[in-house]
Amino acid sequence: MEIHADGLMDRSISVALLPQMLSTELDLAESCSVVIDVLRATSVMVTAGHAGVEKIFTCQTTDQAHRLASTLPVGTLLCGERDCKRIEGFQLGNSPAEYGRDVVAGRELVLTTTNGTRAINAVLASRRLLAGSFLNLDATLASIANQQSLQIVCAGTNGEISYEDVLLAGAMVERLTQSQRPVQIDDSARIARAAWRQMLAAETPLKEGLRQSRGGRNLMAVGFEADIDRCANINTIDGVIERVESHETAFQFHAP
Amino acid sequence: MEIHADGLMDRSISVALLPQMLSTELDLAESCSVVIDVLRATSVMVTAGHAGVEKIFTCQTTDQAHRLASTLPVGTLLCGERDCKRIEGFQLGNSPAEYGRDVVAGRELVLTTTNGTRAINAVLASRRLLAGSFLNLDATLASIANQQSLQIVCAGTNGEISYEDVLLAGAMVERLTQSQRPVQIDDSARIARAAWRQMLAAETPLKEGLRQSRGGRNLMAVGFEADIDRCANINTIDGVIERVESHETAFQFHAP
Repeated sequence: MEIHADGLMDRSISVALLPQMLSTELDLAESCSVVIDVLRATSVMVTAGHAGVEKIFTCQTTDQAHRLASTLPVGTLLCGERDCKRIEGFQLGNSPAEYGRDVVAGRELVLTTTNGTRAINAVLASRRLLAGSFLNLDATLASIANQQSLQIVCAGTNGEISYEDVLLAGAMVERLTQSQRPVQIDDSARIARAAWRQMLAAETPLKEGLRQSRGGRNLMAVGFEADIDRCANINTIDGVIERVESHETAFQFHAP
Repeated sequence: MEIHADGLMDRSISVALLPQMLSTELDLAESCSVVIDVLRATSVMVTAGHAGVEKIFTCQTTDQAHRLASTLPVGTLLCGERDCKRIEGFQLGNSPAEYGRDVVAGRELVLTTTNGTRAINAVLASRRLLAGSFLNLDATLASIANQQSLQIVCAGTNGEISYEDVLLAGAMVERLTQSQRPVQIDDSARIARAAWRQMLAAETPLKEGLRQSRGGRNLMAVGFEADIDRCANINTIDGVIERVESHETAFQFHAP
């Protein structure tokens, strides 16, 4: 589309296939970031939010998690994983199955994971910061559709690009580039969109795509295969997980 | 395919979408690397080799280029670019159009470019090291088809992933995974292959795909659009550019 003379600027979408590949051309303070760790941190955050969690605080180390929890209300739950498994002394691991309404409703959570919370830390300076998943894809897209400068950040797995995160980034780019408003995308966004389109064209079910991915293979190796299916449901949750403005790493669930 | 009991191991193919994303799981000394800088360094190397160049030495800085050239025969040509343009005092830039047989046949070249020669430096420890291009795709594939451990390294553009390099990586992965022998590919290889398949499925001509890429846009901005077409010819050259064993960065052209 042409750019109109009334000063309407192009929207821009960039994708970081790993947190360390954040575009240097982007001013985070002026942009909206969506962090993606499909298997499983951001899927867990969305699941927990939908189950009635009050707030989710993310941090990078178990020490930080303990310190942070000690400043929060009694009943705050320590959550997270190392090597896919629940951290010793923590109440919950990183499986969506653990985050039922009976367990987490009304509570505050402190979450630390290997890849997802690190990706969040990389874009804390963003004006808006969301955690995305397939579970709430449409709700997330509705919330970010009008952002002028959008950055989608894939968490990856132990420093390597993960197919499952790139698929969700691609699904987002696909939908966001279908609008009538002009939009510029970077090469990584084009590549992510191709990965998503190719999976659809091959009629590969999403669950199968996730099983083939680095994160999926890791989960299967330690017996968490059922979590792959839990994270592959598309649009079962209507609401978004977004960072609360007044806290650097506090997230809340907002229904539309 | 099943792995046979006679000890036949899976072949593995990994793709680094940027040199800094080289897989940490790989032992370079045991693997074959193909470096890709479609626009334009590795396309230039293949073009020059086919035009009868004796040897191509790559290096990272202009100072290194001058020092290296001073140790080489009279008539050695200093070649390369910064910001896409010929380096001051150098005889040739980084356009394939400059590397005609009348100019380069029988000569030695010293080449330094912004992205391509840096990518080469990142994998100097490889057992075998080739420079790939669309121009000699089939010849390169024939040369690497039986490698047990293959690493395809995309040069990118100024530290960012470039669609044009990922397309060629994807074209290589596509062909190398069609063989009867078992092959394991990493998530980046899967993503690159999807980018290639998607371009074919959309019936986008390669020249158009390259124009849309980061490297292509940069070249068009400085008047080198014709080079995009020159680098988009598939299989016009039958031969490979491979590092000479006895030299860390000396490459030679080998016809089949």
